[in-house]
Amino acid sequence: MSDRTYDLDRKHVFHSWSAQAQLDPLVITKAAGSYVWDGQGNRLLDFSSQLVYTNLGHQHPRIVKAIQEQAATLCTVAPSYANAARSEAARLIASHTPGDLDRIFFTNGGADANEHAIRMARLHTGRPKVLSTYRSYHGGTQLAVNVTGDPRRWPNDNGSTGTVHFFGPFLYRSAFSATTEEEECERALAHLEQVIVLEGATTIAAVVLESIPGTAGIMIPPPGYLRGVRELCDRHGIMLIADEVMAGFGRAGRWFAIEYGDVVPDLLTFAKGVNSGYVPLGGVALSDAIYQTFAERPYPGGLTYSGHPLACAAAVATIETMEDEDVVGQAAALGTDVLGPGLRELAERHEWIGEVRGVGAFWALELVRDRQSREQLAPYGGSSPEMAAIVAACNRRGLLPMANFNRIHVVPPLTISAAEAREGLEILDQALTEACTA
Amino acid sequence: MSDRTYDLDRKHVFHSWSAQAQLDPLVITKAAGSYVWDGQGNRLLDFSSQLVYTNLGHQHPRIVKAIQEQAATLCTVAPSYANAARSEAARLIASHTPGDLDRIFFTNGGADANEHAIRMARLHTGRPKVLSTYRSYHGGTQLAVNVTGDPRRWPNDNGSTGTVHFFGPFLYRSAFSATTEEEECERALAHLEQVIVLEGATTIAAVVLESIPGTAGIMIPPPGYLRGVRELCDRHGIMLIADEVMAGFGRAGRWFAIEYGDVVPDLLTFAKGVNSGYVPLGGVALSDAIYQTFAERPYPGGLTYSGHPLACAAAVATIETMEDEDVVGQAAALGTDVLGPGLRELAERHEWIGEVRGVGAFWALELVRDRQSREQLAPYGGSSPEMAAIVAACNRRGLLPMANFNRIHVVPPLTISAAEAREGLEILDQALTEACTA
Repeated sequence: MSDRTYDLDRKHVFHSWSAQAQLDPLVITKAAGSYVWDGQGNRLLDFSSQLVYTNLGHQHPRIVKAIQEQAATLCTVAPSYANAARSEAARLIASHTPGDLDRIFFTNGGADANEHAIRMARLHTGRPKVLSTYRSYHGGTQLAVNVTGDPRRWPNDNGSTGTVHFFGPFLYRSAFSATTEEEECERALAHLEQVIVLEGATTIAAVVLESIPGTAGIMIPPPGYLRGVRELCDRHGIMLIADEVMAGFGRAGRWFAIEYGDVVPDLLTFAKGVNSGYVPLGGVALSDAIYQTFAERPYPGGLTYSGHPLACAAAVATIETMEDEDVVGQAAALGTDVLGPGLRELAERHEWIGEVRGVGAFWALELVRDRQSREQLAPYGGSSPEMAAIVAACNRRGLLPMANFNRIHVVPPLTISAAEAREGLEILDQALTEACTA
Repeated sequence: MSDRTYDLDRKHVFHSWSAQAQLDPLVITKAAGSYVWDGQGNRLLDFSSQLVYTNLGHQHPRIVKAIQEQAATLCTVAPSYANAARSEAARLIASHTPGDLDRIFFTNGGADANEHAIRMARLHTGRPKVLSTYRSYHGGTQLAVNVTGDPRRWPNDNGSTGTVHFFGPFLYRSAFSATTEEEECERALAHLEQVIVLEGATTIAAVVLESIPGTAGIMIPPPGYLRGVRELCDRHGIMLIADEVMAGFGRAGRWFAIEYGDVVPDLLTFAKGVNSGYVPLGGVALSDAIYQTFAERPYPGGLTYSGHPLACAAAVATIETMEDEDVVGQAAALGTDVLGPGLRELAERHEWIGEVRGVGAFWALELVRDRQSREQLAPYGGSSPEMAAIVAACNRRGLLPMANFNRIHVVPPLTISAAEAREGLEILDQALTEACTA
């Protein structure tokens, strides 16, 4: 069965972001909690939450049951109708989004959520441009990938206008020659203000920001930065779009990572953790002001599966579980008590670890050849034998890490136990030792 | 329960393509086969297949069971792994796509399928532009809606370059002053050739065509047209993308509507019918030549839920059911034996019906004030009291039709019985009479 799966995959499945002939995909046959099993029956601890989305782990019985029950009742209805699962999911999401972001437009994932949020901002303001940061990821469709600030944008830099990139705060590799968090914050805000002035404030519909940039490196914004961006947006009539696709729904130890900045965005996008990715779902939460723009004038956007009942039923079960079991609190404690201390301990033993940063269940190890020069262990946009060796050593020892360029991200399910998390950290420790001495 | 659903919907759910404050959505509480039930317990015959996607009707037991079993086994894995449901779905889809379109890239729906197909064509050819027809719909994300040729494009006509529209064949409202199908075909091809020459063939990556334009009016292309487009594309090194999101998977009485033209496109996009929309799923089938472009060079596109196991399991059950029960043959017979004759009979009795066109389970009534002038019963991009009256009369009598501008589309599940189809035609007959004499 596993051989057939592999053979048919190689014959017929075209994979994301890959050179197809160079792939040798692992067959995953089952999963439970923090573990998955491959085709040979090997158990692997999932320190990646797949693509940072199975926030409640694999096969959570409450979500599985909700999907099965919704499937038995009503798999699907068109977006124009009202439906119990959709209404309830919208209510639950709105009860956790900040401020007056109480209207929910459902999409299929994070990319189309960001595309629609940008469209709403453009139509609400009547302005064309969108500012976003370098070192960001906002999705794979054309507009979303053009807004993205990582190398996946490069081959797609055509056919799009009105997207402008600026530098966000990232002290370890400061774009502003800053040496303290305070300096980085102040200079990053001054930089954004210059970009706004020089691009022309009246041409800018929105600033799109991951509240904590995720795939690009889990760079926690310095205190005051998000508030400063909010103030710049307010001063210039610019909408603030918080991309919470990866950081939201408890990943960062808060319902939404923007809470750390104590500001309310105009639009907030989500996907992944909203239902642990058990059924494709994303969405946009809108402020009342933006909702009012489309109260009497049609919103020119939509999709066949908007508010899909099966996906919404999975969201209801996920959010109710998160509430009942204080999963957000668990994630915060995991960061404070286990992952933070554990990773900093690793940094004491491994010269390659240039920086440990993160919060909740959302951590990155920045790997360098030399702590002084901070030369990356793999180039921006690429890999290296050392990075490949670390990942291979993890896999051999039963751990699925998430690697990106010169970084290892530690992003397990929020529900991982302390013992499982320590098991994973130990494997990572051994893998770093093995790769470093190879 | 139904009141709560309605209230929460009005408070929290933002709907597609609508002025939010003007909505009064019907609550759908359950569904079975060709029927849905509203919050008051009224049964409605679904002549719309929701948004033309529940091809096997509602709550088909085999698809429901497949979803429940896959949910119990493995709801989700990341796209980089291999997985049994994904492999099997890809094999089944590839076994029905024309020619050498044997590699399947999975997306969440039709819009992102078209976005990725265009990206593949651009990167394969190294050319920037995409040609598509007026009177078409290709999806709601930014690039997809810019390629679209219906009024939903207008408010989004910004931030996109490289999309050019031309006229497809539509004899009833010919853009070429043609009076016969042969003339329409010949002139439409000459027009496309002129557009290619004047836009510059070497700047054109792809022609994107719905094999039968769906929402735009179900205009069956005249014999020879698709073959002529294929020849023009071949002569100029342009990729042909067949959008089969609505017309595919049996809707038109063939597995794919492009089969009527007896040509093989370079890329084919699908969604909706692939799994009757029970779980969000779309995708692109690639020719071997385009696959080879991304064999050793990474394809710069992807998405978190590509090849989602739950969605793929629903596709496997849907396609196996279609094979076992000859659903495609059923759809063809439905058109020949019931819907075609029945709708033409309506046309004899109702002066408003200017043209009946369609095939399989895919029909349109073109409604006009006057058969001579062919003045539309509602303007392009708008509605009218008459159209609203027809829809209201249908609803009151227990029928959900699909209306678009001056057209009523008759697009029931492919599995609708002859008796149910006749019941629907009878209601439509009464509704037309009532609205016309009001």
